[in-house]
Amino acid sequence: MKQMLLLVALVATMLPLWSQTEQKPRRQRMDWFESVKSPEVKANGDVTFRLFAPQAKEVTVNGQWGPAAPMEWDDDEQVWKATVHPTVADIYPYNFVVDGQAVNDPANKDLFPNELFKGSLLLMPNPEMLYTERDIPHGKVHYCTYYSSVLKELRTMLVYTPADYDLKARLRYPVLYLVSGTTDTEETWYKAGRTNFILDNLIHDGQAEKMIVVMPYGNMNTGNPRPSSSAATECYEIFSQEMEQCVMPYVETNFRTQADRRYRAIAGFSRGGGEALYTAFKLSDRFSAVCAYAAYLTDEVYAERFGHLVNNPEKMNSLFHLIWFGVGSDDFLHDPVKQNEALFTQKGIRHEAFDTTGGHTWMNARKYLGITAKKLFKK
Amino acid sequence: MKQMLLLVALVATMLPLWSQTEQKPRRQRMDWFESVKSPEVKANGDVTFRLFAPQAKEVTVNGQWGPAAPMEWDDDEQVWKATVHPTVADIYPYNFVVDGQAVNDPANKDLFPNELFKGSLLLMPNPEMLYTERDIPHGKVHYCTYYSSVLKELRTMLVYTPADYDLKARLRYPVLYLVSGTTDTEETWYKAGRTNFILDNLIHDGQAEKMIVVMPYGNMNTGNPRPSSSAATECYEIFSQEMEQCVMPYVETNFRTQADRRYRAIAGFSRGGGEALYTAFKLSDRFSAVCAYAAYLTDEVYAERFGHLVNNPEKMNSLFHLIWFGVGSDDFLHDPVKQNEALFTQKGIRHEAFDTTGGHTWMNARKYLGITAKKLFKK
Repeated sequence: MKQMLLLVALVATMLPLWSQTEQKPRRQRMDWFESVKSPEVKANGDVTFRLFAPQAKEVTVNGQWGPAAPMEWDDDEQVWKATVHPTVADIYPYNFVVDGQAVNDPANKDLFPNELFKGSLLLMPNPEMLYTERDIPHGKVHYCTYYSSVLKELRTMLVYTPADYDLKARLRYPVLYLVSGTTDTEETWYKAGRTNFILDNLIHDGQAEKMIVVMPYGNMNTGNPRPSSSAATECYEIFSQEMEQCVMPYVETNFRTQADRRYRAIAGFSRGGGEALYTAFKLSDRFSAVCAYAAYLTDEVYAERFGHLVNNPEKMNSLFHLIWFGVGSDDFLHDPVKQNEALFTQKGIRHEAFDTTGGHTWMNARKYLGITAKKLFKK
Repeated sequence: MKQMLLLVALVATMLPLWSQTEQKPRRQRMDWFESVKSPEVKANGDVTFRLFAPQAKEVTVNGQWGPAAPMEWDDDEQVWKATVHPTVADIYPYNFVVDGQAVNDPANKDLFPNELFKGSLLLMPNPEMLYTERDIPHGKVHYCTYYSSVLKELRTMLVYTPADYDLKARLRYPVLYLVSGTTDTEETWYKAGRTNFILDNLIHDGQAEKMIVVMPYGNMNTGNPRPSSSAATECYEIFSQEMEQCVMPYVETNFRTQADRRYRAIAGFSRGGGEALYTAFKLSDRFSAVCAYAAYLTDEVYAERFGHLVNNPEKMNSLFHLIWFGVGSDDFLHDPVKQNEALFTQKGIRHEAFDTTGGHTWMNARKYLGITAKKLFKK
């Protein structure tokens, strides 16, 4: 009787979302619940994906480690199955495409936070990667709700504080503002970017200063993101207002920051990097470092909005101790980033350029964060 | 040229996950990106769902407001579409079933955190619901990484602190431990349960004491959750060890708690409620209140493990100022919960029972939290 009750309980707990359209015998769903392991990462670097989708005709697994891999129905396991072997053990967003429909991996609780892509995260252990969780003191990630007077809505930002933040109640910390890209959410730098573990490791190893990292939501709700330069610039302008009027005041009230431009930096990936560059130059009295991860501003934006800075390299060089650009050789933004660097070189503005392989990916975004976090706020 | 670059940029940003298997003309995908609004909640309570799935043959939307609704292809909008009208404006987990495959809503960034269900959250505005975000002071939700010496792995717990926690650096707070159910993750009480907004509202309105709420991950990795009483009891036992040896020490080191059993309560939904009851009775020197949301322990577990308590009502009544059971009339656990209450009545153990309509849902779980949070730690 007890067994029966618990069995009923478990099935009913599992099924409320889809029981009404369930077409397979319940027993089969139970088997699936009990046995599907996906992704399964083996010691040799093989990764096996599994999906229970008995009605599907064609399934592929699609991730940023390489080309899409067809999955095959395995009669023994009663799942679609594929094994891949990424060259580099890393964290990869992926999804399944089931008869043309993209779905995330039902067996994997690690989701890729995104406005559009319903992907999952393949987390491969790799001690050489900074994202690796180690048994060292860990910082915390705080989800903060604030009212945006600019956007007239409640919003969420994430704030990382290092491991000793709660133990040293009088210490104040420098702040890095870290902005996510188009279609990302305020959670993406945390869950796909692993900002907290990258900083935990660098700080523990003495490679980065202790710092607070603020992860605001880069989407300014400016309607459909139909691409155009003027729309992008409008979005960057609103972001800079949101930063100045809402995000920064909240952070400086609620966290123990060093409220001084020398201890304030801003970085971002993709659109977030555009927002970072624009905000740093517009609020140059508030920031002393800016890092653009696969991001740039156009020559026109510099000429129209920041001529007083780009035509005054002496001023720029005294204001910013770090202006940093990183981009991958296969990144679709490679050329405009290089064009931005060329402008700064031509103007005599001090900056650093980092070139790597790969594309516009979170594998590279994590790499950029790891490299630049070491450079910030050095005494 | 700039427009072109940005267009290429945007498309490429959108497509990395599925570009390799893309079968539709790119323009169609752009249309979808620009125009799909789902879910759309209208002022009259109608909710319209939309899904771009041109290859699908049959699509339904499946949520806890009622029976699954068939979706129909709309030639004008080029999406599958359905409109429903939930009787009560609430927060509902839902998904789409596309030719038998459950998927979450690609246009909705609010995901239902779960180990198995890839669902989305329909958030309907309703000023009468405690989950409603208001422009009042908000608490924070902290994601904390800790090493579990019981489970030999790094784990995450979420901790809510009320709005004034960071402003009153000397104040100490009572703690409610709030455990999620089978297949839920440590995020479910936050994102589907809206614990933070429920507490923000109750505290702001003077209806609940200021308290810290700790949301641990109830999955004890005890292998496949094949249902049996002994497996459940084993899981509860491990959970109580995890609480005593890892979760509670972490919380009491890292947060300003009132470290006294009078100011410590535990509650949980479904399996989490079983874990809460078991832990409260096993560690009765540490807890003075326990709330079971659609949860129970069997008569056998009481007899075998907690005979010294259930057969000593005087002791139980002096130890626990609140033992609370809530369950819905359609909940598949209704009868065993009532059986648990009957045992306590028969033994003369003081407890409260709350009966409501509905099933084993997060709509009810939020309701239970709102009711019990008012009862805890009253002076």
